[in-house]
Amino acid sequence: MMSQMSDEPIAGPGFCPAYHHAIELIGRRWSGVIIRAMIHGATRFSDISAAIPGISDRLISERLKELEAEGVVVRTVVPSTPVRVDYALTEKGRALGDVVAAVATWAETWFAPLEVRDD
Amino acid sequence: MMSQMSDEPIAGPGFCPAYHHAIELIGRRWSGVIIRAMIHGATRFSDISAAIPGISDRLISERLKELEAEGVVVRTVVPSTPVRVDYALTEKGRALGDVVAAVATWAETWFAPLEVRDD
Repeated sequence: MMSQMSDEPIAGPGFCPAYHHAIELIGRRWSGVIIRAMIHGATRFSDISAAIPGISDRLISERLKELEAEGVVVRTVVPSTPVRVDYALTEKGRALGDVVAAVATWAETWFAPLEVRDD
Repeated sequence: MMSQMSDEPIAGPGFCPAYHHAIELIGRRWSGVIIRAMIHGATRFSDISAAIPGISDRLISERLKELEAEGVVVRTVVPSTPVRVDYALTEKGRALGDVVAAVATWAETWFAPLEVRDD
């Protein structure tokens, strides 16, 4: 037990805006699973769509645009016939591999398959 | 370049509902910063409030209830005068330390302080 005399808040090593931004960027609905699918090799819109049950094309598109604006994903139009669009993680995006691995380990350790709620 | 012959989706090691649930649980607005404040020692509602600029009491309360329902946080009413309410991370919650550390490392590496948008 620490002293009960002080009313000073226990703030730890300060509030970190970069952490705040990062955790909500990758935790936004569907973003975390899109990033995981891309880390595992998805490079086409159709790969991402096939890898994630229940996601709509509109949401994939919105999330990819956000991740592109954040410098996590890069979109390349390949001038073939027909034109092909490729999505790739940038170096910043690939660096999320450690985060995805840490979350996956936590999830596998602490959620029994049936415990996950379908909401 | 891998074979272009197959239209099979690159799904990686399959979709993981536990990962999906986990990343959106901790990435939900404010939840990641509340968990970080608690990992850094916050045990009272007022500690959390003081550690996070701009969060409302209503949102702290909502998020703590969600994290309690998920088994990440435990709430204890200490029968003192006046009654005191303590919040603590469970073992499952403390295990998020690795995730918080991975996100913090990524954020510190990839966001210059001025790059974080205030939205």
